[in-house]
Amino acid sequence: MPATAEIGSTTWVIAAALIPEWGEGPGAPVASRETASILNASEREAHASITVFFQNREPIGPYRVTVPARRAERLCFNDLEKPTPIPHDTQFACLIESDVPIVVQQTRLDARRGDAAAITTIAYSAN
Amino acid sequence: MPATAEIGSTTWVIAAALIPEWGEGPGAPVASRETASILNASEREAHASITVFFQNREPIGPYRVTVPARRAERLCFNDLEKPTPIPHDTQFACLIESDVPIVVQQTRLDARRGDAAAITTIAYSAN
Amino acid sequence: MPATAEIGSTTWVIAAALIPEWGEGPGAPVASRETASILNASEREAHASITVFFQNREPIGPYRVTVPARRAERLCFNDLEKPTPIPHDTQFACLIESDVPIVVQQTRLDARRGDAAAITTIAYSAN
Amino acid sequence: MPATAEIGSTTWVIAAALIPEWGEGPGAPVASRETASILNASEREAHASITVFFQNREPIGPYRVTVPARRAERLCFNDLEKPTPIPHDTQFACLIESDVPIVVQQTRLDARRGDAAAITTIAYSAN
Repeated sequence: MPATAEIGSTTWVIAAALIPEWGEGPGAPVASRETASILNASEREAHASITVFFQNREPIGPYRVTVPARRAERLCFNDLEKPTPIPHDTQFACLIESDVPIVVQQTRLDARRGDAAAITTIAYSAN
Repeated sequence: MPATAEIGSTTWVIAAALIPEWGEGPGAPVASRETASILNASEREAHASITVFFQNREPIGPYRVTVPARRAERLCFNDLEKPTPIPHDTQFACLIESDVPIVVQQTRLDARRGDAAAITTIAYSAN
Repeated sequence: MPATAEIGSTTWVIAAALIPEWGEGPGAPVASRETASILNASEREAHASITVFFQNREPIGPYRVTVPARRAERLCFNDLEKPTPIPHDTQFACLIESDVPIVVQQTRLDARRGDAAAITTIAYSAN
Repeated sequence: MPATAEIGSTTWVIAAALIPEWGEGPGAPVASRETASILNASEREAHASITVFFQNREPIGPYRVTVPARRAERLCFNDLEKPTPIPHDTQFACLIESDVPIVVQQTRLDARRGDAAAITTIAYSAN
């Protein structure tokens, strides 16, 4: 049986996030995505609360995400709707707080290159 | 004589992994790879156990990898076969546990750009 | 109401920074940028002091940046003017010191690819 | 006067390094580089010792690098000659040990894209 464990941190930050808006004609991809990949390696369901910060306006949130035990979730910022969608082409940062230790990695995908990832980094873990 | 030491951690996580599947005709590269580069700088052989997590199914593993003393191993997820190959075009996360401290760095290679690396990050070390 | 907290570190380093200088004709982009995205998730205004180090000359600075409470700032090295602009096409490192904990992520943008980010990494936090 | 301080760690690892070898005709770039950017923010000269590890052979080194006080060095692995050049197109890992705390960031440059960086990550700090 594979290993499981409570691995990671309960507080994570991505400081440089952006949902790209491609508008270069009919061939423009619609699938470029800003994502946070979340691993919950534990035996417990993880409940994450996400706050999104901007340069010139009040933060919005919390967005709620549930990651089942022993699962890897791919949170796509493009798809968040409640409390309100995140504006495109706007730099933002996000704070992810979970009741169970998780690991968070940022990836921005550029669909124009065949779903190749453009950038990635392990997020900052605050504790 | 070069230095050797027990450097790193025994528990590592890559949260955003993906084996790309290129299918764009006869010129399509077959060598795009998701890899975990592992340094064992110690004088002891390291035995690593890898568990792979998914969004919608049970984790699989453990995969077993041995890294000799004073060697840098390049683990290619495409090549893992036992207990079962990792599905392509599917996001996964992996937990790497070793009996000797190691250092793990993720790299995804895009063979269409002359073996240039597309993305890299030091993995998350959990202890 | 979204969460706020004093998250991060007061000392950060980006070791490999560079303001690209594109000069490939009339279509050359002028918007390629070296940036440090800074999250101040706290309730207090953060005052950051930035020192820039070079290979062959004395460091310059401090540059001063203020990040309001609960805001994500995007510091563009291209735009710094006081005490002196940072030379282009020259490798530099920077030390960012803040009176309030912040999180810093480096991103270099290559405007020739539609504002897609070329590289990113969470900066090094020194405490 | 800008700030100076002993910031960073004395032990660093890059696990996934590679000196690219481009050989695609007369237009092939010769300047693609694997680099480690090193910040010595202290008032003391730093003496770094670098050991290079491979998959199938004994490690080589130490390579010696001196970083003056308050300087940012860009160590290019392509240029190392003593005790022996690092083979191209061969994965390697490196251990960087310094007598003064430093910060290390890996960057691989792809000269075919106008000196844009292809990948970067803060290296792993072991203490």
